[in-house]
Amino acid sequence: MSTSPLDTTEFRSKLSLLATLGVTVGVNLQRGQELIVTAPLEASTLVHHVTKVAYQRGARLVTCLYEDPGMIHDRFAHADDGTFDYAPEWFHRGIADAFENGAARLYIVGPYPDLLSGVPADKIVRAHRALARASQAETRCTSASRINWSTLPFATGSWAAQVFPDLPSDDASQALWKVVFDVTRVNGPDPYQAWQEHNRTLNTRRDYLRNRGYTSLRFHDGRTDLTVGLADGHTWVGGTVRAGNGIEGNCNIPTEELFTCPHRERVHGRVHFSKPLALAGTLVENLYVEFRDGLASTIKADRGLETIQALLASDDGARRLGEIGLVPHASVVSRAGILFYNALFDENAASHVAFGQSYAACLGIAREPSQQPEATGANHSAIHIDCMFGTSAMNVDGISETGRVEPLMREGEFVI
Amino acid sequence: MSTSPLDTTEFRSKLSLLATLGVTVGVNLQRGQELIVTAPLEASTLVHHVTKVAYQRGARLVTCLYEDPGMIHDRFAHADDGTFDYAPEWFHRGIADAFENGAARLYIVGPYPDLLSGVPADKIVRAHRALARASQAETRCTSASRINWSTLPFATGSWAAQVFPDLPSDDASQALWKVVFDVTRVNGPDPYQAWQEHNRTLNTRRDYLRNRGYTSLRFHDGRTDLTVGLADGHTWVGGTVRAGNGIEGNCNIPTEELFTCPHRERVHGRVHFSKPLALAGTLVENLYVEFRDGLASTIKADRGLETIQALLASDDGARRLGEIGLVPHASVVSRAGILFYNALFDENAASHVAFGQSYAACLGIAREPSQQPEATGANHSAIHIDCMFGTSAMNVDGISETGRVEPLMREGEFVI
Repeated sequence: MSTSPLDTTEFRSKLSLLATLGVTVGVNLQRGQELIVTAPLEASTLVHHVTKVAYQRGARLVTCLYEDPGMIHDRFAHADDGTFDYAPEWFHRGIADAFENGAARLYIVGPYPDLLSGVPADKIVRAHRALARASQAETRCTSASRINWSTLPFATGSWAAQVFPDLPSDDASQALWKVVFDVTRVNGPDPYQAWQEHNRTLNTRRDYLRNRGYTSLRFHDGRTDLTVGLADGHTWVGGTVRAGNGIEGNCNIPTEELFTCPHRERVHGRVHFSKPLALAGTLVENLYVEFRDGLASTIKADRGLETIQALLASDDGARRLGEIGLVPHASVVSRAGILFYNALFDENAASHVAFGQSYAACLGIAREPSQQPEATGANHSAIHIDCMFGTSAMNVDGISETGRVEPLMREGEFVI
Repeated sequence: MSTSPLDTTEFRSKLSLLATLGVTVGVNLQRGQELIVTAPLEASTLVHHVTKVAYQRGARLVTCLYEDPGMIHDRFAHADDGTFDYAPEWFHRGIADAFENGAARLYIVGPYPDLLSGVPADKIVRAHRALARASQAETRCTSASRINWSTLPFATGSWAAQVFPDLPSDDASQALWKVVFDVTRVNGPDPYQAWQEHNRTLNTRRDYLRNRGYTSLRFHDGRTDLTVGLADGHTWVGGTVRAGNGIEGNCNIPTEELFTCPHRERVHGRVHFSKPLALAGTLVENLYVEFRDGLASTIKADRGLETIQALLASDDGARRLGEIGLVPHASVVSRAGILFYNALFDENAASHVAFGQSYAACLGIAREPSQQPEATGANHSAIHIDCMFGTSAMNVDGISETGRVEPLMREGEFVI
């Protein structure tokens, strides 16, 4: 009888390490604090490791709200059309109440790329909108980092099949887990120490960028030449976050990026995107965009042009930028050398822009909803699509209000 | 490669039938109604069948709040001692809110008999108490049948191993599932029709008992001779229940019993219990009890005497009766001929009494909490232990206020 490669002592010990990183480096769970976990059913082994670590560190209670992809599939396959505008506010209100009472949150994220293939987009959009409405109070606690929270990846079988379509399923899972353990720094002599150093590097560069207060960035590698003006009052985000409750952790594991908010009208130049985009089941390859006054005025692609054009036509803000992210070419995610079909990973593989919605956190987490982010130049849209354009030849300059130009990256790597 | 007996088309089709019975006969889910399911992770296949059936019948949304025995185990193994008085009110408040807004409930129950073996009873009791407090608003909706709800069994692997300890695990599971499908009437030419008939029989007898208004019952089979006075204003429960929201269904699948509330001070005579009791990991065999003025005055057993004595010493009400239930000896559960170690099954195998807490529903569901159930003779205790004493020789008489004696059962079977 052959044993699954995922049923070995070595694998279990790495999964346990990943769980430990999530609870310590990620959530930074405090003694006496309650922890709410969400995870797909398939990730129950990782949930058990998280549970054990959390209790050993003094968790008051660990609750996992399992997500069942089979139930989601069955809903879209069998529910009455009229029901898709409903989402369970009682469920999300409950979580928000827990947050108000001191709970922390860990998202265990495992993609199911084919789950909704064939479902009319309209149903998905309506369900998504209803969910966003019903979970407003809950998501505000995490998106504005009022509480300590983090995200851990789980290599689901269907995700592994997407990333390694030519491998048998066991091999694909093993291959994806190897990469996941690489980029989360589990594969190393001292993962905890590695994260301490990594955070020190990220935080130092983030604070440098905050202190320099550049008004724009210029990206140039011979082919791309893009100037990205930054929103007024923008702040750089990345590395660790000190939540509103005072607890400091990493919201994403893995994380390699430092990012902030572009000014929606101050983006100029041309950009050759260096990685394919996986969008709604379509691959967009060799995307090329020219910007004028913040607007994507020319859009070309060797493949998937119609898909990206349709998405960028979603609303007024969809053709403008909501995020600019810096990632060194030598980042552990980039070195994995594969397309993950997943933003949590791919956006950590190369410098990127995102079309669409900007992040409130990039305008300072203390900002009140009553203030108008638009006044700062922040962008607003129903979409947020990360597009990677970093290369090994990329140079990045920071340009200050006085026009002073300072090198930030040379040939893909930071020089600060 | 051998296929698991639980991975066949036949098994899946029976599981689907069980799900259909739960959603239709049990919950009687209405078009446009939300459904909340709770189930152990192991029961996800049954949950998927329930989900599909529910959506096909027009469910607004189906949410499963999975229970993870591994997490429960890890909590008791690793959590700080000081945390066991806490339970997540936010979670149960959310469910109560859903009920207030029209949701129905389906409990999928799968026992894990060894889950907490070795855990100090004190911790379990504290956790149980905290849970009871935190979920008061939720449980009030079901225990008083304000909403439509039901219970379905799931034959977990560890339950199968307990019931059939001498069989290999696959065979034990198959054997237990066979019995589960027997007693839930899934094994039959037309399960839906069978439930209609069964409910008609139960409801007719229940209404007969309500109409006759007996003040006491006498049980005698040559060895047992027990007279059970009934609480003032008691009502008989069993068969279908019309919930406060007007929807009629079966709260338990399987169900064979008609039950009501004894008067705590009006129980006299001797009773030989006919089935072993499984209590906290101990088997109590050949239990014999004598009652005087409602109190269990003499308690004997061939095995497990100390366990039952300790439990009946829990509080003032523990040595008195809170329930009397009538079950024909030929009931499908009785005919299975095995000990299930599970009240949902075993109490449907034979006429029984329960020591301890009485049910509010047996005093009329309209009763307000402000009224004193004690004034009716209802019993109050922290325990509720079902003890089976029905036999194939059991005769039951109904005795009216005027002393008139009417036969209800003869040689184990109803004669009404």
